[in-house]
Amino acid sequence: MAGYPWISFTTDYGLSDGFVAACHGVIARLAPAARVIDVTHLLHPGDVRQGAAVLAQTVGHLPPAVHLAVVDPSVGTARRSIALAAPDGLLVGPDNGLLPWAADVLGGVRAAVELTNPAWLGPTVSRTFHGRDIFAPVAARLAGGEPLSGAGPDIDPATLVRLPDPVVNGGDGWLEAEVLTVDRFGNVQLAAPAPALAGLGSRLLVNDVPAVRGETFGSAPAGGLVVYADSAGQAAVAVNGGRAAVVLAVAPGETLRIVTAATGADLP
Amino acid sequence: MAGYPWISFTTDYGLSDGFVAACHGVIARLAPAARVIDVTHLLHPGDVRQGAAVLAQTVGHLPPAVHLAVVDPSVGTARRSIALAAPDGLLVGPDNGLLPWAADVLGGVRAAVELTNPAWLGPTVSRTFHGRDIFAPVAARLAGGEPLSGAGPDIDPATLVRLPDPVVNGGDGWLEAEVLTVDRFGNVQLAAPAPALAGLGSRLLVNDVPAVRGETFGSAPAGGLVVYADSAGQAAVAVNGGRAAVVLAVAPGETLRIVTAATGADLP
Amino acid sequence: MAGYPWISFTTDYGLSDGFVAACHGVIARLAPAARVIDVTHLLHPGDVRQGAAVLAQTVGHLPPAVHLAVVDPSVGTARRSIALAAPDGLLVGPDNGLLPWAADVLGGVRAAVELTNPAWLGPTVSRTFHGRDIFAPVAARLAGGEPLSGAGPDIDPATLVRLPDPVVNGGDGWLEAEVLTVDRFGNVQLAAPAPALAGLGSRLLVNDVPAVRGETFGSAPAGGLVVYADSAGQAAVAVNGGRAAVVLAVAPGETLRIVTAATGADLP
Repeated sequence: MAGYPWISFTTDYGLSDGFVAACHGVIARLAPAARVIDVTHLLHPGDVRQGAAVLAQTVGHLPPAVHLAVVDPSVGTARRSIALAAPDGLLVGPDNGLLPWAADVLGGVRAAVELTNPAWLGPTVSRTFHGRDIFAPVAARLAGGEPLSGAGPDIDPATLVRLPDPVVNGGDGWLEAEVLTVDRFGNVQLAAPAPALAGLGSRLLVNDVPAVRGETFGSAPAGGLVVYADSAGQAAVAVNGGRAAVVLAVAPGETLRIVTAATGADLP
Repeated sequence: MAGYPWISFTTDYGLSDGFVAACHGVIARLAPAARVIDVTHLLHPGDVRQGAAVLAQTVGHLPPAVHLAVVDPSVGTARRSIALAAPDGLLVGPDNGLLPWAADVLGGVRAAVELTNPAWLGPTVSRTFHGRDIFAPVAARLAGGEPLSGAGPDIDPATLVRLPDPVVNGGDGWLEAEVLTVDRFGNVQLAAPAPALAGLGSRLLVNDVPAVRGETFGSAPAGGLVVYADSAGQAAVAVNGGRAAVVLAVAPGETLRIVTAATGADLP
Repeated sequence: MAGYPWISFTTDYGLSDGFVAACHGVIARLAPAARVIDVTHLLHPGDVRQGAAVLAQTVGHLPPAVHLAVVDPSVGTARRSIALAAPDGLLVGPDNGLLPWAADVLGGVRAAVELTNPAWLGPTVSRTFHGRDIFAPVAARLAGGEPLSGAGPDIDPATLVRLPDPVVNGGDGWLEAEVLTVDRFGNVQLAAPAPALAGLGSRLLVNDVPAVRGETFGSAPAGGLVVYADSAGQAAVAVNGGRAAVVLAVAPGETLRIVTAATGADLP
């Protein structure tokens, strides 16, 4: 294999400790030519679902890479350590649902291995920091061109842990969908893809709050709600100059209901 | 053109989502040889003025670069997307006042273009993420050596949006100036350049709080206020071992008044 | 000297201002071939002890490097600026105790110099930002292969400022140790090395809270306390799926007491 010049790196390690740097150091030692793009290290601690969503929405914009991702509340237990091969990249991390959504974006899982080859790891493997001791070394070796089969035995992709699909329902003039993410600006991204908005009118109620259907934040008046197709191709709700997650008082995992407003309703 | 080996990158995107990484990915695809220096991605959401101040105070310490900066509350509206050429670098971002202060530090705006050439952008341009879809691709192409004129038509530099100058007034024994930034240590930086402190005495009152004129934090006793020339050449106020912004209860945009203390005043 | 391809960079500068980027810029100008690994810039402002602990626990995982570290509440006073040579790397920063713990990990201080050569610094040196004006230029020149002796005169390693050793005491069935760090997950790391846990039983009391001796977070039931050897080789306390620092209400610098629980005690 030719390897990859890039490694992307996604964790919930935070930026206050030396954890991220220790992994960068392991990569620098084993694959000094590899360049690392940090996706984020500020995922909510242990929030596998948020990590899976952020990674899946980002990998399509990255160059071909080994995608190293670690959100791992069960580190050191029986959960497997895995690497996945997809047509447009490799993924390395825990087998807890973090990786498959991104693998789907990269063309689907074509092969999977369990990371059990001790020769690929450091001299000692801690029980609590597999990012440094298992996943980073494996990602570095794969970036350097070593074959996936060297990391450990094949596993059946059908046995990979997958997160449950988020709630999305819709009908004539209504859409109900789980909140997938809330970004730094308070914009609320739904699990429904943007085309699910097609059946809705131009004036809406989002959890009973009036909103307009628009294309960008400025489609609503200042402080008003707008329902739009976001930059990841998902249905989303924003407030022009404000924070939709606060106005709607919702968080990831909760469900939003959007309905076409009746004529004459009190709208922005 | 020879291009630039460096791209600097400044936004209010935060570090919790994949937004910054998506832009890094776009740059890596289009200009794989370019190296990125992240200035900050933690500007207050939508705070163009803070972004302009941080960028202007940083660019002088960076190598010659394409400076990519995005604080863009009006994304997707009629505001223009621009690139500016200065003697010591290029700047790319929205036409909302974010870039001209930095351009002044780099020698002044010599040319400006509006980013309208679709061939320079990705296959689809979202309405809400121009950092990824317009500004990063343009910055990458400019770093790779493509000419500014390829990005779009010339615009008159006199038509660029500029932020209003911050308030600075002074006289015999007094100085009144807007707070430009508050840094992580709570140090309060004023819009007045350090030489504006020349007319003041060695013992001062800052909004009626006693202070000394000094050169570094340790010029004041522990917990005491010091008025000094900061590392960006601005007048500033700090507390030795404390947070001046808390002691003075001020925030950017508010005005501080510094006066020479009368003899016999209660001083630190 | 051959120099170093890597510079590690550790500060309390935060990520909201342009301070870190200005230092990256200085390095890029003086040593464009050097690659920088950011350890952290979110140390508590002025917390030299936290900085020393994080740096010491990280350097062993980094490639051979010049380690640039700045936590510097006394910047601009009489405290010395120093560079240290160890068998496995160089360190540059203030002489306030920040560097020696890491130097010990790198094989011990073999030589030390005071950074007084003005030819190595920029045209002007501010009184409040020695990271940009003294430490980053020196780190860049050392990475580029200039000899340590060029930075300034030798100083006696015995005169370096060292932090007091943290409190660690133990006996038959008990261990008392200072909290060294609390990480993003709320895990409480003690100043005692992991072998100090050897004399304890399998069921414990940590400041009177029941705990088990285990190997990873999942060794305790959900919400339960576990005492374990952490990934840095230190004794540590975690809560499975929770935050030990909150459950125990402790912070760095405070002391924890771990004792073997009496038979029949109320345990998790």
